[in-house]
Amino acid sequence: MQLHQLSEQIVDRKNFLCIGLDTELNKIPKHLQQQPNAVLHFNKAIIDATKDYCVSYKINTAFYEAMGSKGWDILEDTLHYIPNTHFTIADAKRGDIGNTAAQYAKAFFETLPFDAVTVAPYMGEDSIKPFLEYTHKTTIVLGLTSNKSSEDFEQLTVLSKDSHSSSSKKLYELVIEKIASWATPNQLMFVVGATKASEMQSIRAIVPEHFFLVPGVGTQGGSLNEVAEFGWNNQIGLLVNVSRAIIYADASENFQQMAAAEAAKYQSEMAEILNRKLRL
Amino acid sequence: MQLHQLSEQIVDRKNFLCIGLDTELNKIPKHLQQQPNAVLHFNKAIIDATKDYCVSYKINTAFYEAMGSKGWDILEDTLHYIPNTHFTIADAKRGDIGNTAAQYAKAFFETLPFDAVTVAPYMGEDSIKPFLEYTHKTTIVLGLTSNKSSEDFEQLTVLSKDSHSSSSKKLYELVIEKIASWATPNQLMFVVGATKASEMQSIRAIVPEHFFLVPGVGTQGGSLNEVAEFGWNNQIGLLVNVSRAIIYADASENFQQMAAAEAAKYQSEMAEILNRKLRL
Repeated sequence: MQLHQLSEQIVDRKNFLCIGLDTELNKIPKHLQQQPNAVLHFNKAIIDATKDYCVSYKINTAFYEAMGSKGWDILEDTLHYIPNTHFTIADAKRGDIGNTAAQYAKAFFETLPFDAVTVAPYMGEDSIKPFLEYTHKTTIVLGLTSNKSSEDFEQLTVLSKDSHSSSSKKLYELVIEKIASWATPNQLMFVVGATKASEMQSIRAIVPEHFFLVPGVGTQGGSLNEVAEFGWNNQIGLLVNVSRAIIYADASENFQQMAAAEAAKYQSEMAEILNRKLRL
Repeated sequence: MQLHQLSEQIVDRKNFLCIGLDTELNKIPKHLQQQPNAVLHFNKAIIDATKDYCVSYKINTAFYEAMGSKGWDILEDTLHYIPNTHFTIADAKRGDIGNTAAQYAKAFFETLPFDAVTVAPYMGEDSIKPFLEYTHKTTIVLGLTSNKSSEDFEQLTVLSKDSHSSSSKKLYELVIEKIASWATPNQLMFVVGATKASEMQSIRAIVPEHFFLVPGVGTQGGSLNEVAEFGWNNQIGLLVNVSRAIIYADASENFQQMAAAEAAKYQSEMAEILNRKLRL
């Protein structure tokens, strides 16, 4: 699925919710933990319960790598279980020199046929270009992340080399501005944390047309209304991720119903926002 | 193995060579490609042929992930085949928020018992701290990388927040300076590219005691003598990685002998440098 199709799904399904499958064996309901292939079983149950309330699933590779090659099998099986009506994201945050980046692109766009993958910008253009060569896929670059220590480096003030004046920008602003020049908004998104709603407005001014993947709503405390207020564009332009607040909504035998209820709550809030913004 | 033991190995074995196992099926000798488990077979042959000439092996996760879960098995089998006299590095360049970073640390320090893992700094302290909690392991943070597009972001001029004056630094300098304050040189290294030998001197001034992992010698064109000139410290402080120039030295049935010969050439140059520098 490409981004213009994601936009259609958002309008049709009246939500811009991505559910993050950050699954850990010791956090899933106790009664499932002893089952064979418990994590896959849990993921399938969560997908069954929530697919009507979201348009995307994001698989965080760390949680699967922590299980070794078995985890990689579960990741693959989970990906293939996601309906093709949903936009699939490998949250991998990879970044390396060109010939290595090409292998990561192959891993997440071919071997595992995800629609999108997250990548890290530190190493610059040759670490990102190999992903952009898959023009029918979506590359999602870290811009301003939702964690507190984004202030360590992302929020540093940098002097722009292109400028003759002494004008300065934040590192994340320059990262977003520069990378936006390497591909069209049809195949490039940016990660912009929901916990940084005030900065989201200035980022939207830099890249008016790009989709944002927005983590940080839910457990991390970001506000959905603020995100919609500051991140909206005329193509909607927002995909909000919620992970733990939905998938671990409940640890009892009712976990599916509770996850569905939590997802439905987000879907309903988003439908309201969409109705208001699109004046449907 | 910890860094003080790596230093001992370097003196004993008279080299500071790390060999990068960036193995791709279509680049290994044709006569091996049809064998079952060809990549693992190749890796074992390369390790057998080169282990007397190096002190470390670095496994680049991208090349294994591109093969899916089978690749993850090969990665694990390769790791377990490396003699415990050698320092093992997962070249993974991971970086994510705290609870995810903890899963990556588990993946590469527990599930796969590497001695060290490479991580990316963009997201700041909470993306790196979970690795540093493994105090008997080594965390290797990207500083200044060997690729051309390190100039896109790593080499930007940033204004230091801590300073009252208008003093400025390169982003990679500030990254290295700040991260060096989070752990002792016993458990923290920095990636400093060999293609950036002139900058290596100023980085050595910032972190006089830390080990550098130095990619870029070999196929990428960095000079071993320049690296030794500018990167040396009183603990040696250098681990130079060579990947393609050694493992793909030859594509015939003699590939093992030719890889060994190439590794031996580096070992011999390094022994000369060590003899000179340590005045043995």
